[in-house]
Amino acid sequence: MRADKAHLWTSSKDFLGCDHVQVWLVAGDCFLIGLAPVLVHMSKGPDGKFPFHPVSINLLVEVAKTIFATVVLMLYQGTGRPGPPLYRSARAFVRDARHNQLLAIPAGLYAVNNYLKFAMQLFFKPTTAKMLGNLKILVIAVLMKWVLKRTFSVFQWEALLLLVAGITVNQLNYCNDGDMFSGVAIAYTLGSVTVPSLASVYNEFALKKHMDTSVHEQNFFLYFYGALFNLLGVLATMAFGGLSWTAIFHGHSKVTMLLVMNNALQGILSSFFFKYADTILKKYSSTVATIFTGIMSAALFGHSLTLNFAIGVTIVFISMHQFFAQGELARVHMLAPLI
Amino acid sequence: MRADKAHLWTSSKDFLGCDHVQVWLVAGDCFLIGLAPVLVHMSKGPDGKFPFHPVSINLLVEVAKTIFATVVLMLYQGTGRPGPPLYRSARAFVRDARHNQLLAIPAGLYAVNNYLKFAMQLFFKPTTAKMLGNLKILVIAVLMKWVLKRTFSVFQWEALLLLVAGITVNQLNYCNDGDMFSGVAIAYTLGSVTVPSLASVYNEFALKKHMDTSVHEQNFFLYFYGALFNLLGVLATMAFGGLSWTAIFHGHSKVTMLLVMNNALQGILSSFFFKYADTILKKYSSTVATIFTGIMSAALFGHSLTLNFAIGVTIVFISMHQFFAQGELARVHMLAPLI
Repeated sequence: MRADKAHLWTSSKDFLGCDHVQVWLVAGDCFLIGLAPVLVHMSKGPDGKFPFHPVSINLLVEVAKTIFATVVLMLYQGTGRPGPPLYRSARAFVRDARHNQLLAIPAGLYAVNNYLKFAMQLFFKPTTAKMLGNLKILVIAVLMKWVLKRTFSVFQWEALLLLVAGITVNQLNYCNDGDMFSGVAIAYTLGSVTVPSLASVYNEFALKKHMDTSVHEQNFFLYFYGALFNLLGVLATMAFGGLSWTAIFHGHSKVTMLLVMNNALQGILSSFFFKYADTILKKYSSTVATIFTGIMSAALFGHSLTLNFAIGVTIVFISMHQFFAQGELARVHMLAPLI
Repeated sequence: MRADKAHLWTSSKDFLGCDHVQVWLVAGDCFLIGLAPVLVHMSKGPDGKFPFHPVSINLLVEVAKTIFATVVLMLYQGTGRPGPPLYRSARAFVRDARHNQLLAIPAGLYAVNNYLKFAMQLFFKPTTAKMLGNLKILVIAVLMKWVLKRTFSVFQWEALLLLVAGITVNQLNYCNDGDMFSGVAIAYTLGSVTVPSLASVYNEFALKKHMDTSVHEQNFFLYFYGALFNLLGVLATMAFGGLSWTAIFHGHSKVTMLLVMNNALQGILSSFFFKYADTILKKYSSTVATIFTGIMSAALFGHSLTLNFAIGVTIVFISMHQFFAQGELARVHMLAPLI
């Protein structure tokens, strides 16, 4: 297993625990995440609803990512592995598909997660669903320990708890009551917290396991498998929902295409996070991006920043510093008895 | 200066950073702080208001503490200093009053603070006033650095920020709007945050400066000076407010006497905190006591615990662990380049 090579980047960290690759990944995430709500808003019809079926968006996003990965593969040519590239022949394709078969697992889990996200909306208000989703951070950390054999100091665990707390404080608003916690709701909650966490961690595991394989080839198969699963989902929706192909793909426009591109690029960026950084940095990055979006929207559109936003941001930044600066200290602490 | 001896207690700390003296101090604080709201509630008249003048409570509390300290002094006899005890003759009293003259400063500041607390109620809702008061924690830390030459690691500073955040999150409720921040309000806010912080830190400084002097003698003078200042305040209120002596001391009962005792005991306990621990532990202790009270009230009276209470408690406990476990690590970190 080449997972140890994946941590080479830690040696290039400066005092604050950052390195240049990570800065670019986070900056890209900020841009894409910031743009998303604008596009979502623009894509709504005059009645405030979406004129398109969300299932079609998921499929189009996977297809877009697959096309993107194919183009990049062709441009870069080398896959880092011997033999002709996967697009040269059916045999090369199958051979590479086998080599990357682990990626089918996260692809399938992500597809299941799309369904769960939709189902959670039936049980919970959007804000509550988001708050419950924050627990993914803790599940991810536990899974990273089991699957990737990562160890975290007690201060890093606390930092992750603080991240959950900080994000949740940010989401606290004045109407936090009334959501029902039935047995079914709890089951869906557990699923919607565990499935995407397992998907992300397994994704990171699979990408780092073959560190020598070109990330472009890995991306291709991740999205290819993803597109396959989503296509299955679309066909199932058509079969059980009695919708036609045209009904599912109705209502798209230039804006929805931009929405698809935005989601596709976020997915592609995620892969780079999982290969060259890790799932936890991805979580921190999304949080920073969301905070940045909130501040920009206050600055540009005059929305006021609430007290719990200020508190939440403070807690998140402290959490970040604690998490990334405590790895080295933890190791030093273990050496302390020798001093 | 004997402030360095005051930190002897750090060497008896166990893994979590606690030692037995501190545990008793915190337990005592929990009990007294938990009892206080019950007594306050019981002391209200049938119309929900207090039938007594708050100024009289302050004076009675100082007098009670002075009497208590005198009795203890007589019981323990030794003051740790040569010469007859202060109650033997006027000359001995004056000599000891001079030796402890530094304590007049915190006593005076506390008396001013009683007025500021009252004034803040005019500008802000009780919850907002409390939230602004949380900033005292940061002012105390800065003053400890300047006055007591304490150093804190960056993680300890962050832990204090988290303490403020956690307490504030706890106090967030659904009506956090509408308080005016005029120039006068800001001035009073700055005062009500700085004055008690300076009082507490100077108190700690004065008590630890003469570590060999009996804490009972120090307590006596702290409360004696406090009683003097409060008496001045009462006389001023009578002069300017046109109230008579009877009007000020009207409306007391057995319950108000218990309230006075409760406040007096809290004050006495504070002195022990300042002499044998420090101001920061006192702050954490009060916070833990408040949380404990909240949980007990939920358990005994069926009040529901809100989400922000749960989040606030989590943050406070993480803050506590971070603060008390990071002193040693900070020192180890400084040694790290030598490894």
